[in-house]
Amino acid sequence: MPVNPNRPAVQGVPAFPNVPSLPEVPDAAIVAVPGEHAIAAVEALGAKGCRFGIVFTAGFAELGATGEGLQDRLVEAARRHGMRLVGPNCLGLFNAAQGYFPIFSASFENGWPVPGKVGIVSQSGAYGTHLFAAARDRGIGTPVLVTTGNEADLQLADFIDWMAASDEVDVICAYSEGIRDGTRFVAALEAARQARKPVVLMKVGRSAVGEAAARSHTASIAGDDRVTDAVLAEFGVHRARTTEELLDIAYVAQKRIYPVGNTLGVVSISGGAGVLIADAAEAVGLPMPAMPEDAQARLRTLVPFAAPRNPVDCTAQAFNDIGVVGAFAESMASDGGYASLLAFFTQWGASPSIAPRLRAELKKVRDKHPDRLFALSILAPPERVREWEADGFLVMEDPSRAVVALAAMGRFGEAFARQPAEALVLPPIPLPAATPNEAEAKRILAEAGVPMVPERACADVEAAVAAAREIGFPVVAKILSPDILHKSEIGGVLLGLADEAALRAGFATLMQRAARHAPQARIEGVLVAKQVTGAVEMVIGTVRDPVFGPVAMCGLGGVFVEIFRDVAFRRCPVSEADAEAMIRSLRGFPLLDGARGQPRADVAALARAVAALSRFAVAAGPRLLSAEVNPLLVRPDGVFAADAVIEMATPDRGDLRGPHGGT
Amino acid sequence: MPVNPNRPAVQGVPAFPNVPSLPEVPDAAIVAVPGEHAIAAVEALGAKGCRFGIVFTAGFAELGATGEGLQDRLVEAARRHGMRLVGPNCLGLFNAAQGYFPIFSASFENGWPVPGKVGIVSQSGAYGTHLFAAARDRGIGTPVLVTTGNEADLQLADFIDWMAASDEVDVICAYSEGIRDGTRFVAALEAARQARKPVVLMKVGRSAVGEAAARSHTASIAGDDRVTDAVLAEFGVHRARTTEELLDIAYVAQKRIYPVGNTLGVVSISGGAGVLIADAAEAVGLPMPAMPEDAQARLRTLVPFAAPRNPVDCTAQAFNDIGVVGAFAESMASDGGYASLLAFFTQWGASPSIAPRLRAELKKVRDKHPDRLFALSILAPPERVREWEADGFLVMEDPSRAVVALAAMGRFGEAFARQPAEALVLPPIPLPAATPNEAEAKRILAEAGVPMVPERACADVEAAVAAAREIGFPVVAKILSPDILHKSEIGGVLLGLADEAALRAGFATLMQRAARHAPQARIEGVLVAKQVTGAVEMVIGTVRDPVFGPVAMCGLGGVFVEIFRDVAFRRCPVSEADAEAMIRSLRGFPLLDGARGQPRADVAALARAVAALSRFAVAAGPRLLSAEVNPLLVRPDGVFAADAVIEMATPDRGDLRGPHGGT
Repeated sequence: MPVNPNRPAVQGVPAFPNVPSLPEVPDAAIVAVPGEHAIAAVEALGAKGCRFGIVFTAGFAELGATGEGLQDRLVEAARRHGMRLVGPNCLGLFNAAQGYFPIFSASFENGWPVPGKVGIVSQSGAYGTHLFAAARDRGIGTPVLVTTGNEADLQLADFIDWMAASDEVDVICAYSEGIRDGTRFVAALEAARQARKPVVLMKVGRSAVGEAAARSHTASIAGDDRVTDAVLAEFGVHRARTTEELLDIAYVAQKRIYPVGNTLGVVSISGGAGVLIADAAEAVGLPMPAMPEDAQARLRTLVPFAAPRNPVDCTAQAFNDIGVVGAFAESMASDGGYASLLAFFTQWGASPSIAPRLRAELKKVRDKHPDRLFALSILAPPERVREWEADGFLVMEDPSRAVVALAAMGRFGEAFARQPAEALVLPPIPLPAATPNEAEAKRILAEAGVPMVPERACADVEAAVAAAREIGFPVVAKILSPDILHKSEIGGVLLGLADEAALRAGFATLMQRAARHAPQARIEGVLVAKQVTGAVEMVIGTVRDPVFGPVAMCGLGGVFVEIFRDVAFRRCPVSEADAEAMIRSLRGFPLLDGARGQPRADVAALARAVAALSRFAVAAGPRLLSAEVNPLLVRPDGVFAADAVIEMATPDRGDLRGPHGGT
Repeated sequence: MPVNPNRPAVQGVPAFPNVPSLPEVPDAAIVAVPGEHAIAAVEALGAKGCRFGIVFTAGFAELGATGEGLQDRLVEAARRHGMRLVGPNCLGLFNAAQGYFPIFSASFENGWPVPGKVGIVSQSGAYGTHLFAAARDRGIGTPVLVTTGNEADLQLADFIDWMAASDEVDVICAYSEGIRDGTRFVAALEAARQARKPVVLMKVGRSAVGEAAARSHTASIAGDDRVTDAVLAEFGVHRARTTEELLDIAYVAQKRIYPVGNTLGVVSISGGAGVLIADAAEAVGLPMPAMPEDAQARLRTLVPFAAPRNPVDCTAQAFNDIGVVGAFAESMASDGGYASLLAFFTQWGASPSIAPRLRAELKKVRDKHPDRLFALSILAPPERVREWEADGFLVMEDPSRAVVALAAMGRFGEAFARQPAEALVLPPIPLPAATPNEAEAKRILAEAGVPMVPERACADVEAAVAAAREIGFPVVAKILSPDILHKSEIGGVLLGLADEAALRAGFATLMQRAARHAPQARIEGVLVAKQVTGAVEMVIGTVRDPVFGPVAMCGLGGVFVEIFRDVAFRRCPVSEADAEAMIRSLRGFPLLDGARGQPRADVAALARAVAALSRFAVAAGPRLLSAEVNPLLVRPDGVFAADAVIEMATPDRGDLRGPHGGT
């Protein structure tokens, strides 16, 4: 039912002059009128009782402040009537099963969606239709495509959630320029995980140019890209680097074989390709265990010059006896027990003299082992490829791409096998009214379960001396002030005070430095602490990500964090096992693990501290902006926090306001 | 002329019973008889006067020790008669222009080589023919393919060298499992560079499994993969990670446009694809500068919602007025001045309603700017792609792959623009008969131009005290012994000796430790050196790579080298400019460049030291196995070597023998 005030018909279909004159209430409406008129149209549709609007109109939040105001009015118009919106600034969507194509695209000129169960949701309209068309050209069926544009109301997460529950979709492909609502996104990923549906995501905007372009394209904002990576890893989402990689993985995922403990067996008529494949498998962490010795011996009796270890090279001898290929492949499946098999047959896949016999040999193996992923790297025209696919094989010309896709299936399997995180009910933690000083910050974190270096707050030098005697020399002395957050920058930390005289002199030095560098600061005395030696210095903390909320981080202290960016992230709360995985993922982990002849540090205690801090961040709620322990001294007999900083939001700073205000 | 003792004809061609009975001397011979017979055949061919043999026969060095003996006999048979060999264990070669196809492959069943100038040389036979076939299927013409197998005589380098000089080849593609002769290889790469012919290399065997497989495949050995990377970078060789990447780059390189100062301009009908492309460009270091402001303003008058910065998004408005696309593209070429242009048009590239008008618009731009690389990312069947290519466009469906290939053209351009390294004539340096002690090593390296920390070798404690007074306290003291190479492991280094008493006590401690931990060692006293403070600790050195000879390395000291593997390599000799580039390539470079509020270290002096050490390694010749300065203390006012180790080959250790013995 076209609506147009100026014409009696649109593309031959009788038109109505306005929304009120429509003879019935539409299920959904496409809004494709310019600027302000779109808001009026949504208002009119809502008043008519229409529940869903698909807004093609551009010129909203992607243009900046002016457009944001218009977009807010658009959403308000819809909300008044309980209407939901896709867009604005989107190309629409389709559901091929329903024959419903409310979409603005030339992509159907070259063909309609083919049957299949790969769903697509994309913030970008043109890229979304590109994905559909590229998938169709590869024979991948996409029953559903949704483009979400500016996501003023419905978001990527809502459609991932819908696909997780829908029988029409087995595999979910998504393109995102920025996650709007971390909570909805995470819930949608968990729904997909529990439904055993892989999510393959192209999340762009990593680079500076890309991030700026994303902002002007669909008004997206970016959190820390490393935090996004950590969240995606948590739910087993594959973050694709290229469009081809995304489609490769969707293609293989259609088999719905997601092995736990994936391994790769390679059979090749080219030893060279076998080496190349082994390199590619190591690069993506897909193990290629050797064939059992007795099986190797049997294969050697078939082809004396074969390399039967894995990669298994049947050599050009297979030319003379194609049965050898079948025997080799069967042995890899039966004796090798690999979850994934990759066969490199290059032009043999379409050779008139070889392909028919090769297909007969390999189909026997394929049919006997339907639980394996069996991929072929062959050079063949599409019609030959379809024949192999009809026999149950996955076909990918480039073996390196096949390896990436097969490896992804194992990671999906492992993510699907994980137990859902237990819902953690934490009593809220009372926080002080303002950002606490170091002593208070330490008291709070000690209560939260992070072990502290023994220390005393001392108002004067006599108290300091008494405290040092109790703790034992040598000690560390630090300025104590709520107004000085980064003490070491003004020389406010003295190490290795060996005796009373040194402590007295140090106390005087600290007071002088405070008076000189921070004359306005309130000075509450000094903190006297035990000097811990023989430790590895770590940094652990939590930060409030604008998208995903509190995120735990840990890294080796000093230059390792600052220059090498050797830091691990994970959404809070973090279990002790997950914390240990974070720690072990650091490039510098050997420094905790006995490198250079040092004793091994207490990694379990470190993991407990990270987990405790992460639970604290959840319980503390949104007023906590960040908490950092730097350094956390990790010894073989435990961990000791030597400094702590807690930053809190104050209402006037506006830190509590999300990047999208109320939306 | 088939030779077969058992049949009168082979495949319908009259056969000769043996080589002597051939009616004329063959220009070249294919040897495809098993095992031992191959040696006899080569002997007979050589005696007949044949100059070239192509040996298909397998079962030589790829099988290990037994096979190596056979292979040596094969080569000796050829050498006796001045005959050159390709193989053994190869599939042969072809030269399409000559109609010469002495090759064992099914790959021609699906088509012969198409016209073009991309040469292929591959150690692996099956992989080489795969490359040819994959290239042909993409319309890339390969006039020459050589498979080299075990390379008992002729090597990859010889064919790269031939292609560098041949008019038949513009672009060289190579596959290697291991470089046999570094000198020949390097000379061939330099010949290709000077001929402005890009070399794209797939060098496999990075992984443990891959390296083992390579050894059994074509009997290849591996040097340090990072050294290989450094050598390839030196000559501007692109090391491809996948077969597709190799062919993508060959495809684009056929244009022979190799810009110096490459930049990328992107025009897209999808803002999303624009963001994706910007990410991909940053990942490969291809700059995407913004369009000039005035040009942006003009584009905005054409399409108000366009993002005209770069990536330039003409938005779906181009649907209504295809002329907009032409205007945008022309502005990017003329006003933006980008050396490389990438246009993302997805299905529009084959849309019956859009493609013809789009071609007309873009061809105008293409014809006006023939000096630019102009790539299209479109979804189109091969026949449509050929049309675009006929108009002068490069077509690659995946935009990320296009970015990688375009970026490679700029790196080729920069490599071609470099002046050849000046031949360095260095007087040989006399080395001591055996591995020198620390003092001697330092004297040698100081003479070579590496500044040393002021120090004195002292036979007894009184000499040590006198030396320290002269140098100035505080000092460092170290055990002096030709038998103790790694002193710190036995506590043989004492730092920060502040006065005479500390030095006397330290001397005694060192003597005790030496007696306890190394009772057999000859002790020559202690070395007393100035203690240098406020320095960044580096490691610089040279190692003798089994393939490429002396290689210079530098890295930050301690854990940075050992755990983070943050090390740069370059073939010796290294110029000061190249040494500085090595230093700046370190991830930890900010530590030398004023990070954390420290003064900047003297990078120029550090570069001079690396260059001096590298020249020393060349002049010292093959007896030098390694030279290492660790630590080299880098201060704002210069560098000071605090320790030096020189390792030399002794004839009985066999270190002088290359991995391939005399071959």
